[in-house]
Amino acid sequence: MAQAPSQRTRVRRAPSRADYDRAAIDAILDEGLVAHLGFAIDGQPYVIPTLHARVGDTVYIHGSTASRAIRTLTAGAPACLTVTLTDGVVLARSAFHHSMNYRSVVVLGEARPVSAGEEMMVALRAFTEHIVPGRWDEVRAPNRKEVKATRVLAMTLDEASAKVRTGPPVDDDDDYALPVWAGEIPMRLQAAAPVADRRSMDGVAPTDTVRTWDPQRSRRRASV
Amino acid sequence: MAQAPSQRTRVRRAPSRADYDRAAIDAILDEGLVAHLGFAIDGQPYVIPTLHARVGDTVYIHGSTASRAIRTLTAGAPACLTVTLTDGVVLARSAFHHSMNYRSVVVLGEARPVSAGEEMMVALRAFTEHIVPGRWDEVRAPNRKEVKATRVLAMTLDEASAKVRTGPPVDDDDDYALPVWAGEIPMRLQAAAPVADRRSMDGVAPTDTVRTWDPQRSRRRASV
Repeated sequence: MAQAPSQRTRVRRAPSRADYDRAAIDAILDEGLVAHLGFAIDGQPYVIPTLHARVGDTVYIHGSTASRAIRTLTAGAPACLTVTLTDGVVLARSAFHHSMNYRSVVVLGEARPVSAGEEMMVALRAFTEHIVPGRWDEVRAPNRKEVKATRVLAMTLDEASAKVRTGPPVDDDDDYALPVWAGEIPMRLQAAAPVADRRSMDGVAPTDTVRTWDPQRSRRRASV
Repeated sequence: MAQAPSQRTRVRRAPSRADYDRAAIDAILDEGLVAHLGFAIDGQPYVIPTLHARVGDTVYIHGSTASRAIRTLTAGAPACLTVTLTDGVVLARSAFHHSMNYRSVVVLGEARPVSAGEEMMVALRAFTEHIVPGRWDEVRAPNRKEVKATRVLAMTLDEASAKVRTGPPVDDDDDYALPVWAGEIPMRLQAAAPVADRRSMDGVAPTDTVRTWDPQRSRRRASV
């Protein structure tokens, strides 16, 4: 297991759950559909859900140039981007040892504004491909007005760490003698059937991209 | 739709998606299995996934008394607790209008430490019942040592707001003429079969609580 890249990135609670390997970090960032972005204004922290996409050593976020979060981060405020996957509930014999199985990544740092140009198009493509792999080539690409209204920000993965819990509950020794069922109930995100927009053109069927979309499987594909 | 309870709670981006009704806020807090908790240390924001549970007008969080996050919040640092449910991906005819359908709640404020006593037991019970409704009465209750090692913090819902997106994509007028499939792919969390701990006692079967656990249905039950 790799070392923590910085003191403030080091996982302090339950350090046995920590993982600083880039492959583990990348896989979690790529599978998570949304991130939670933290920033502070006048000392008050805010945490907002946002779409993200990783390309190599960079995780991109984006928003309207009019957004307060985006303006705050563009001005150089420190940020934290967290992605969490919930894999199951952990049922122990005692209330105290109940837990969740999960995988999470925390990325610390400042966000660098991406200027219009090649990198911006790479990022915009990555956002679309992140939520629906294969979709970019099927839709209208962003035009100049849309690019201008969008601010893309980049965070490097220099200060990133992962935390993972898997497996059965860990009970107190005495409690293993209790006649209480204990174990894990795994869970996963599953897609329902696509619902066509009522304003769809006649005769336009969902493509394979749409029909085979899977909130977990497609993440794995995207991470290759 | 209710008014924003404070200026800093007012939803600024896409205000048509905002909802300040307590029933809407409560339902999202109750359905979400995990929250993302934001706090700052030396100006650096941190966002960590954590279990939460709502009881009336209060949302509780907890952690080890040794945890840095818990110590920071106990000292009165301002916090933000965010719960997000991802309901589907929204496929537009243009890359730009792709989106997610989601429900999220943001709670701002300081966290009040809960002292050992009746309120603490109410909160501990709520954590267990939040992730697995019906479980509290089937397991060993917390003992004095466990209560002492746990710090429970309370945030009021005075400064809470919800943000919700539902429905089909909203495309540019011209784009409705494109032969691109558009619509929504809903998704939901689903439970797999329970996996018994290998150290389970012989003859202890999963109860109804375990067998019927559903990461979404049970949330709804819990919110009644």
